[in-house]
Amino acid sequence: MRKLEPALFILFGTTGDLAKKKLFPALYTLFSSGWIHPDTRVLGVGRRDWSDDYFQEVVMTSVRASQPVTGSAITDFLDLFSYFKMDITRDADYDDLWRSVNQMESGLEINGNRLYFLSTAPDLFPKIAQAIGKGQPAKEGAFRRLMIEKPFGHDLASAREFNDHLRRHFEEHEIFRIDHYLGKEMLQNILVLRFANQLFEPAWQKEYIDHIQITVSEDIGIDQRGGYYDRSGALRDMVQSHILQLMALLMMNRPASFDSESIRNEKVEFLKKICLFTEQDVMSSLVLGQYVEGSEGECAYVDEKGVEENSKTETYAALRLWIDCERWQDVPVYIRTGKRMESKQAKITVVYKKQNDAPAGGDVDANMLIIRIQPREGVDLRYNIKKPGTVYDIIPVEMSFCQTCQFPGQSAEAYVKLLIDAWRGDLNLFARWDEIEATWTFIDSIQKQREKTELHTYAAGKNGPAASDSLIEQTGHEWLDI
Amino acid sequence: MRKLEPALFILFGTTGDLAKKKLFPALYTLFSSGWIHPDTRVLGVGRRDWSDDYFQEVVMTSVRASQPVTGSAITDFLDLFSYFKMDITRDADYDDLWRSVNQMESGLEINGNRLYFLSTAPDLFPKIAQAIGKGQPAKEGAFRRLMIEKPFGHDLASAREFNDHLRRHFEEHEIFRIDHYLGKEMLQNILVLRFANQLFEPAWQKEYIDHIQITVSEDIGIDQRGGYYDRSGALRDMVQSHILQLMALLMMNRPASFDSESIRNEKVEFLKKICLFTEQDVMSSLVLGQYVEGSEGECAYVDEKGVEENSKTETYAALRLWIDCERWQDVPVYIRTGKRMESKQAKITVVYKKQNDAPAGGDVDANMLIIRIQPREGVDLRYNIKKPGTVYDIIPVEMSFCQTCQFPGQSAEAYVKLLIDAWRGDLNLFARWDEIEATWTFIDSIQKQREKTELHTYAAGKNGPAASDSLIEQTGHEWLDI
Repeated sequence: MRKLEPALFILFGTTGDLAKKKLFPALYTLFSSGWIHPDTRVLGVGRRDWSDDYFQEVVMTSVRASQPVTGSAITDFLDLFSYFKMDITRDADYDDLWRSVNQMESGLEINGNRLYFLSTAPDLFPKIAQAIGKGQPAKEGAFRRLMIEKPFGHDLASAREFNDHLRRHFEEHEIFRIDHYLGKEMLQNILVLRFANQLFEPAWQKEYIDHIQITVSEDIGIDQRGGYYDRSGALRDMVQSHILQLMALLMMNRPASFDSESIRNEKVEFLKKICLFTEQDVMSSLVLGQYVEGSEGECAYVDEKGVEENSKTETYAALRLWIDCERWQDVPVYIRTGKRMESKQAKITVVYKKQNDAPAGGDVDANMLIIRIQPREGVDLRYNIKKPGTVYDIIPVEMSFCQTCQFPGQSAEAYVKLLIDAWRGDLNLFARWDEIEATWTFIDSIQKQREKTELHTYAAGKNGPAASDSLIEQTGHEWLDI
Repeated sequence: MRKLEPALFILFGTTGDLAKKKLFPALYTLFSSGWIHPDTRVLGVGRRDWSDDYFQEVVMTSVRASQPVTGSAITDFLDLFSYFKMDITRDADYDDLWRSVNQMESGLEINGNRLYFLSTAPDLFPKIAQAIGKGQPAKEGAFRRLMIEKPFGHDLASAREFNDHLRRHFEEHEIFRIDHYLGKEMLQNILVLRFANQLFEPAWQKEYIDHIQITVSEDIGIDQRGGYYDRSGALRDMVQSHILQLMALLMMNRPASFDSESIRNEKVEFLKKICLFTEQDVMSSLVLGQYVEGSEGECAYVDEKGVEENSKTETYAALRLWIDCERWQDVPVYIRTGKRMESKQAKITVVYKKQNDAPAGGDVDANMLIIRIQPREGVDLRYNIKKPGTVYDIIPVEMSFCQTCQFPGQSAEAYVKLLIDAWRGDLNLFARWDEIEATWTFIDSIQKQREKTELHTYAAGKNGPAASDSLIEQTGHEWLDI
C-alpha cells in the first residue's frame, strides 16, 4: 500500500459530534493500516480552551470507543494531534492560526499540502473559506483541499449563494462535498455491479425493468439534532442528498470512462432528467409524514428536544418519481425514507418485468435484484426455475451473496474511504456543484408547493403512514419487504 | 392432479435391463403418486416362458430396489401387470397377441388407448411397428403412441431408413423418440431459466457471451453394453443425442410459443446451423480418445466384454463447434464427454465476455453461469464485486442455487417425466424426426473423415487425453473445472 502524501490536516469543529464519532476513529484506522505518512499532522481548531493533552485524550477516548487499540500505536497516533484555540468568527484569530500553522510546517516535510475539514455549523463555512482564501492561498506544487459536510444550503438559492462564497476562494476540484452515503461499500459496488459485469447491464432499461424501489429507514429518531432537523426534514436531509445520489449511480448511463469527471458528468445528466414535481404530482405522488408517540413510549416528533411544538416538518417521505429519458421512460421509482421506523435498513430493489409469455404458461413472478446497503451488505437475486418434480410449474428461488457474512469485518467505514479519496484527490465519491444544483432544483419543485399535500402521522416504531401504501398501489405496485 | 387417461401399456422387451432399472420403478412412482387410472393395464411381452406371477415378482423386485414401497400399494400395482409370451419375429404370434389384448380391453374402460413401449434391440423395431400397423390401426377417438429408445440409426442413411419403416405405420405425432436426457430436471430448466426470466436472455448472445463449455463425463465404463457401445462410440452415443439436444435448448432462438411444435421448430433451426466439420475441422477441432488401463486396475476399453480387441471406437470426444447464425457468430462451443473419467458430472458453463473497461481499471474475471445437471442439480452465478475495504479492487464472487439441497428428493426421475408426457401426448421432450436428421448430418460430417485424426489414449479414471487441453487452448480458452 502506498502511503498518502504527507499533509497538514486542519479540522474546524474539533469539539463536535462528527469529529468524535467518525473522524478520529477513521483517522486512526488509516494510521493503524499504514496509510498515514509520519510527517502528517492533525491540527484541531476550536473555541474551547483545550490543551494539546486534553485534545489527545478526547481523541483517544473516541478511538477506543470505536475499535480495539494497542498501546504503542495509539501513542504514536496521538502525537500527531495538536489543538489551536480561536474564535472562528474573528479575522484577527486567523492571523494567529496561520502563524502557528506555518511554524508547525517548517519542521516537517509536508510540502505545503493542506486538508481543511469543516465540521462546524454550515453558516460558518463561508467565513472559514474566505479566511483560508485570503490567508493561505494554494501553493505551487502542493494540494489544498476543502472537505465539507452537508447541508449544502437549504434550497437552490441558498445553496447557490453558499457555493458562490466557496468558489471565490477554492476551485471546484479543490472542494470535496461529503455525502457519506457515497462512501458506503454497497454504493461503490453499484458501479462495479453494473459495469464490471456483462450480466446485468443489457437488461438495465425499461424494456426489462418494471420499477425500482429504494428504502432508507431508520429506527432511531433525531437524536440530539432537533434544531437542525426541524429546519430540514426528510426531503432535504435524506432525499436531496443520499437518495438522489444513490439513484444517479444506479440509473445513469454508462460513463465514457471511469474517471471522476466522466462519472459525475453522467450523474448530472441523469439528475437533470428526473421529472420535477407539478402541483398534481405533489398531491398524488408524495406522502409526507411525522411520527407521533409510539406504543413503546417513544416520544412524538414534536416533543423531541429542539423541535417546534407545532412543527410541520416531515420525518417521513414517500415519492413516486419518473425519469424523462429513453432508458427509463415509464419506469417508476418509488422512494421511502423515515425516522423512527420499524427497522433500520437501506436497500434497493430492482423489479424486472414479469415474463408473461413463459414456458409453462400462467403467471410467473418478477425477477428481482436486491442490493442491500445496510445493516447487512450484499446482493440477492430472485429468479424463476421449474419446480422440481413431474409437473411443469414455475417457482421463484433466491440466490444470495452476503458480503457481511463472506467478508466479515472487511467493509470499510464510509469516512475511512472518503478520507483516503480526498487525500488522494479522487473526487469520485464527492458531489460536484452541478449535482447539488440539480438535486435542489428537484427538491424545490416539491417544497414550493408542499402545502398542497397534507402531513400524515404515523406511530413511532411503525412503518410510516398508511397513505404511502396507497401511493404505490395507485400505479399497480406494492412495497416489497424482503 | 388429473389422472392420466386409462390405457393399455404394452411393453416389448420386458425382460431387459431398461425395463427393470427404469420403467417398472417409474411406473410405480406414477402409480403411488396417483397418476395411474385404475383401468390402466401393463402387458409385458417377451420370449421367455414367464407366468403372470413370475412377471409380477420381477416387477416387485425391480421396484423395491429403487424406492421404499408399502404393502398394499405394491399389491394393487402388481395387479395391473400381466405377461404374454411370444416370438416377436413371428407374424402368427401377433395374431394371438392382439386377440389376447382385445380380450383384456373388453372388460375395461380404456377406450382403445394404447401406449407401445419398445425396449427391444432396435433392429426389431421395424418389425414390431409393422405388426402394430397392420394388426392394430389407430382407433377413432383413441390415442395410439409408440415410445422408442435410441439409437435411432447409426448414421443419417440408416436413421432415415429406420424412420421410413416407422412412418409407414405411425404418424410423426404418434412417435415418441426418447432421449432420456431431455427428461432431466435441469434440461427442462434451461427453457425456464431462459424464457421465464428477464434477467438472462438480453445478454444471451455473442455481444456478451465469450464461449460455452459443455461437459458430460462418466466415471463408469461401458458396463454390460460392450456389444452396442463398440459399434457406437462417444460421438454417436452422447454427442448426436444428448449433447446436441442440450445445446439446442441452450442456444436456440426464442420460440414463437411454448407448444412442442414451436419449440421443436426452433431446435431444428438451431441444429441445422451448427457448422458441419470439414477435413480441416476434423484435424484441428476434434480430439478422440480411448481409455487404457487405469492406475487403480481399471481394465482398458479393449479388454471390456463385448469389445473388439483392436477396436478403434472412441470412448472420449472433445469438439470445438461454431454456429452459423447471427446470434452466435464467433462464439465457440466446447464439448467434452467420456467414459471412465475422473468423476461423473454433467454441466454447462456459459462464460461471458470479460468486461475490460471496468470501473477500477485492470483485468476483471468473466461472469459465468453454470447450469449443473448431475450429480448435483443447480445454478451457480459468478460475477464481480468491489473487494470490501479501502481499495478499489474488483473480485469475483459466487451465488449458488442448489436445487438438490433446497428441494431434496423432489427432482423427478427422467423416465417418470417422460412417461407422463408421452401419456398426455406432449411431444416437447421427445425428438422430432428432423432433429434426428440434423444431428446425424452433423455427426456424419465427422464420421466420414474421422480417420484424418488420430485416436488418443487416456488412463481410465483420468480426465481424458492431454490433446483436449490443446484443442481448447488453440482458441484461447481452458477447460473450467468448477
